[in-house]
Amino acid sequence: MSKFEEIRKKYLRETREKLSKKDIGGELILQSFKSLKEVEQSINELCTKLREWYGYYYPELEHENKNNEEFVKKVLENPKRKISIGYELFKEKDVKQILIFAEQIQNLFNYKKKLEQYLDILIEESCPNTKVLAGSSITCLMLEQAGSLKNLMEMPSSTIQLLGAEKALFRHLKGEGKSPKFGFLYGHELVKRSKDKGKIAKLLADKISIAIKIDYFKGKFIGDKLRKEIEKKLTTNSKPQTKNHKSNYETYNK
Amino acid sequence: MSKFEEIRKKYLRETREKLSKKDIGGELILQSFKSLKEVEQSINELCTKLREWYGYYYPELEHENKNNEEFVKKVLENPKRKISIGYELFKEKDVKQILIFAEQIQNLFNYKKKLEQYLDILIEESCPNTKVLAGSSITCLMLEQAGSLKNLMEMPSSTIQLLGAEKALFRHLKGEGKSPKFGFLYGHELVKRSKDKGKIAKLLADKISIAIKIDYFKGKFIGDKLRKEIEKKLTTNSKPQTKNHKSNYETYNK
Repeated sequence: MSKFEEIRKKYLRETREKLSKKDIGGELILQSFKSLKEVEQSINELCTKLREWYGYYYPELEHENKNNEEFVKKVLENPKRKISIGYELFKEKDVKQILIFAEQIQNLFNYKKKLEQYLDILIEESCPNTKVLAGSSITCLMLEQAGSLKNLMEMPSSTIQLLGAEKALFRHLKGEGKSPKFGFLYGHELVKRSKDKGKIAKLLADKISIAIKIDYFKGKFIGDKLRKEIEKKLTTNSKPQTKNHKSNYETYNK
Repeated sequence: MSKFEEIRKKYLRETREKLSKKDIGGELILQSFKSLKEVEQSINELCTKLREWYGYYYPELEHENKNNEEFVKKVLENPKRKISIGYELFKEKDVKQILIFAEQIQNLFNYKKKLEQYLDILIEESCPNTKVLAGSSITCLMLEQAGSLKNLMEMPSSTIQLLGAEKALFRHLKGEGKSPKFGFLYGHELVKRSKDKGKIAKLLADKISIAIKIDYFKGKFIGDKLRKEIEKKLTTNSKPQTKNHKSNYETYNK
C-alpha cells in the first residue's frame, strides 16, 4: 500500500510542477476580458436603476443625458433644479443617498478604465503581433470564441476569418442565406473603410493566423512588417478596384 | 390661441404642483429596494469572475470558502500560497490586478450594508406599523409585488396573505394542486416557528392589512399593540393545539 501511495504522490507532484510551469498569458487575457465585460454589464444595470431613482427627483436631467457615464457625472455635480416636476418633498438625506449610489457607479467606471489598460498591457506582452494586426478588442473576442490561445493558434485562416459569424455560417450550411465573409473582423478599421470588405477580411485573417502562431511560440516581433504587407496590397489594388471590381478580386485570388 | 396657451400653462403648473406634493415614501422604499437587489446581483456575478480569476493563482483557497463575502476578504488578505497547483509564473503585477478587482467587490459589499441601513430607515419612516408586524424584507417584497403603497393598502387581507404565491394560486385555480396558504409570509419568524403555518399566516395578514392602512393615512403607531394581539392569540391557542389540532383551528375561525 505504501508503495502505491509513494507513486501516487510522485505523479501528483509532477503534475503540479507541469501545471505550474505552463504559460498563462492567454488565460490571463481571457479572464481579464471576461471580468471587464462583467464590470461593464454591472455598470449598465446599476445605471438603469440610478436613472429610475434620480428620475423621481429631477426627471428632466435624466432625459437630457443619454450617455451613462456623462449622466453619472452630471448627477454627482448635483445641479440645482429649476422648474421640475420632480417631487419637492425630497429631503436632503434622500438626495444624498442617490448621490452615494451614483458614486459607486463612478468608482466602477474608473475601475473599468484601469482594467482596460491592464488588459492592453497583457495583450502587448503575450500577443504583440496579433495586437498590431487585429487590435486589442478583436484579439480578445477571437480568443474568447476559440477558448484559448492554443485553440486559436491551431485554427486555419479561413476559420479565423469567420470567427464571430457562426450563426450566419451554420444558416448558410443549412442552405439558407449567403456564406458570411467576416465575423469579428467586421469591426476592424481596414474592413470598415474598404468597399470590398470580404477581400480585406480574408487578407487580414491570413496575416493574423501567422501572427498568432508567432505569438504562441514566442517568436520575434514582425507585426509591423505584416501590417505593411497588407497596406501595400490594399494600395496597389485600390486603383483597378474602383474601375472593375470583379476582375480585381479575381487577380487577388490567383 | 393665446387663451388656449394660457389655459394649457395653468393646467401644466397645477399638475406639476400636485405631483410635487405627493408623498414619495413608498416610491423611495421601492426604488431603494430595487437598487439594493441590483447591487446584490452585481456582487454575485463579479464574485463568480473573481473566483475564476483567482482560481488560476490559488485554486485551493477558492474551494475552501463558499461564502462570497468571506472569500473576498480572504483574497484581500493575500495569503502566502503553500503547496498549490496554481501557476507559479504569476507575476507580482498580475496578482495585484486580482486584488484590485477584489477591492471593487469589497467596496460594493460595504455599500450594500449602507443601502440596507438607509432602506431600514425609510421603512421606519413610512411604514412603522407594517415594519413591526412583517419585518423589513417582507414589507419590501410585498410592496414590490403590489407596485405601490396605495395598491398594497387597497388589498384585502386574503390577497396580502397570498402575495408571493401567485404561481401556486393560479395553478390551484386551474384545478391543479392545493390552494396556497402563504406567500412571502412563509419567511416570517412566527410562521417559521409554528406548526399550523396557514393559520398564523392568516392572522398575520389580517393585522398587516390594518397596519398598512394606518401607515398609508399617517395614523398613530399601534404596531406593538397589533403584534401583542397576535402573540396573545398564539399563546392562548397553543395548548389545545398540541392536543387537538383541528378543533383549535375551528375555534379560531368562529
